[in-house]
Amino acid sequence: MKVHVPKKYLADSLSHVERIIPSRASNPSLSLLRLDLSEKYLTLSGSNMDIDIQARLSADTESEGSFSLPASVFSQVIKSLPGDLVELGFSDTELDITSGSFGTKLQLASSSSVSPLEFPDAYEGSLDAGHFAKALAHVRYAAAVAEYQAIFRGVKIEFSDTKTRTVATDGFRLAYYNLPIASGVIGEIVIPARSVDELTKLLSDGDTQISLANNQLSIKNGAYKANIKLMEGNFPDYERIIPSHFPVSITLDAGVLAEAVSRVAVMADKTANNRVDLFIKEGQLQITAEGSYGRSQEAMEVMQEGDDPEIALAYNAKYLVDALVPIEGEIKLSFSGTTSPSVGISEKDPNYLAMVVPLRTG
Amino acid sequence: MKVHVPKKYLADSLSHVERIIPSRASNPSLSLLRLDLSEKYLTLSGSNMDIDIQARLSADTESEGSFSLPASVFSQVIKSLPGDLVELGFSDTELDITSGSFGTKLQLASSSSVSPLEFPDAYEGSLDAGHFAKALAHVRYAAAVAEYQAIFRGVKIEFSDTKTRTVATDGFRLAYYNLPIASGVIGEIVIPARSVDELTKLLSDGDTQISLANNQLSIKNGAYKANIKLMEGNFPDYERIIPSHFPVSITLDAGVLAEAVSRVAVMADKTANNRVDLFIKEGQLQITAEGSYGRSQEAMEVMQEGDDPEIALAYNAKYLVDALVPIEGEIKLSFSGTTSPSVGISEKDPNYLAMVVPLRTG
Repeated sequence: MKVHVPKKYLADSLSHVERIIPSRASNPSLSLLRLDLSEKYLTLSGSNMDIDIQARLSADTESEGSFSLPASVFSQVIKSLPGDLVELGFSDTELDITSGSFGTKLQLASSSSVSPLEFPDAYEGSLDAGHFAKALAHVRYAAAVAEYQAIFRGVKIEFSDTKTRTVATDGFRLAYYNLPIASGVIGEIVIPARSVDELTKLLSDGDTQISLANNQLSIKNGAYKANIKLMEGNFPDYERIIPSHFPVSITLDAGVLAEAVSRVAVMADKTANNRVDLFIKEGQLQITAEGSYGRSQEAMEVMQEGDDPEIALAYNAKYLVDALVPIEGEIKLSFSGTTSPSVGISEKDPNYLAMVVPLRTG
Repeated sequence: MKVHVPKKYLADSLSHVERIIPSRASNPSLSLLRLDLSEKYLTLSGSNMDIDIQARLSADTESEGSFSLPASVFSQVIKSLPGDLVELGFSDTELDITSGSFGTKLQLASSSSVSPLEFPDAYEGSLDAGHFAKALAHVRYAAAVAEYQAIFRGVKIEFSDTKTRTVATDGFRLAYYNLPIASGVIGEIVIPARSVDELTKLLSDGDTQISLANNQLSIKNGAYKANIKLMEGNFPDYERIIPSHFPVSITLDAGVLAEAVSRVAVMADKTANNRVDLFIKEGQLQITAEGSYGRSQEAMEVMQEGDDPEIALAYNAKYLVDALVPIEGEIKLSFSGTTSPSVGISEKDPNYLAMVVPLRTG
């Protein structure tokens, strides 16, 4: 049983599936890639338990069959092939990979070792893939890292009939992004931040079809399908803590501010929350940091608004910079007080909201 | 005391010195950068005990003085500066770094904490910097990694009155490169491979001046000076083991061979010396490898010479590929036997010789 397929096409599709499959696993069957041949297609699929990915390639196949083999070594062979075209020849126990004057016989795993992954036949709704990817990428940084409570390590997606919103928070900062586009799907889910990274890579041009069922988010984008396992637990009621009264606001270029904060923060004490201080008065923003090596400061003109004449706050420099990076152009930073959250809204793209809690000082 | 210097000029020079200075050291004085001001120059210097590097910048200085400060934090500040010009203002205890609207006060280390590095006033000979760098880069890969005897982790440089030769070997492979150019220096030295990496980065256009004294190789290239500590011990008498009788030789493109070996070696057993087998007969080279995942082979036409009609050998694939990478165009690979070293000479640049010992088989 032989299949012919262009090398680049196979290598590109394979890279999306192979990347998620663990290369070493206590149970070797978890490291396997499944290949399914049908009349016109070669389908590649793999899983890491949190996310299943399937890629379908148009291929010159002769018959039907299902095979599985070690994903990592198969991918290494395919990537290194010399020719433009690959011939895959399947027997019961071996896969012959031939390209140019090169040939490999790769041992197949017994066909019972991998059960087929199941993907929906139909989807409930859809979103523009580029918009969806943007909404995920804008909030991903605010998800917590390993040592936090599990639910903080996820990204929430709220599908309602009027909009789709992505949200992430680790308790010290929060980001959300509103897609003012309905998906046709209704539900609130939380998916692991690591799955968000893989999902974002699959989202290319066109529409992404979406379904929620069987405790999974299932998507289809072009030749790719994915099932993403949902996280369990209660995502915090974050809207409650977003302040609405701001005695001081400033507007300035987000990139200029991010660079100045990074520069000043070189002197910040990494063991004391990487603290930088902001002082705003009379349309001047002064940023300072101090640590065992010395102290830095930088000043800049800003457009200042609000009832209070001045405010002094301290932040973790990294949290401030992370919130600014997704923004192009001007940001309006609004301060609710020295101990309550500050809110940043992009002037150009008000769908994005970032919130950072100041450090307690004194 | 103030100095004005363009940011990019300072950052570039600083990167060459700062890179070698340990960022964390049990003795903090080992992490310091020394700055010397003289009438027209700002001189930066640092050391990691194996190599001392000094960079001299033309600068608008007002007076003389010597200062030292933590190299890593100084470098981070300079790299992040917003303006094109930097003002450095020195007091006894602090360095004021000002650029645009940004300023830092960096604490200076006490001036007694770093003794000045000493570089020769005059040099014995010189080599074209580009040639010297090429000779080092061609042999660097053959030096041994950590677990070997110390002397194998160095690169030997033979300065004679007719040529300069670089050599490295780990006992399983060897590379040398002949510069058919005399340096004006006489001596045989071995320097640590890690110092070779730093030295190579300093060698730019023009001539490199060279001296051997005080158990150091000292060089000067443009605005940079370096002292490199020599290694002690007896470098093996390698010329004795380079074979001169070859029953079989083949000539082929080095890049094509390196790619084929890498491709076939995907199947090689990493725990068994990453073995690939070469079989040469009737102008055909066949490369094969076998491991727990399966087996690969690739065949190619070669120009074959020699008294014997065929030969079969096995190699560590990595050693073969490392030896081929420096070569552009064709290589003549000469085989002295299945258990004695094989020799590769670049057809285009016969100054380079690579030797690889085959694996024992059977």
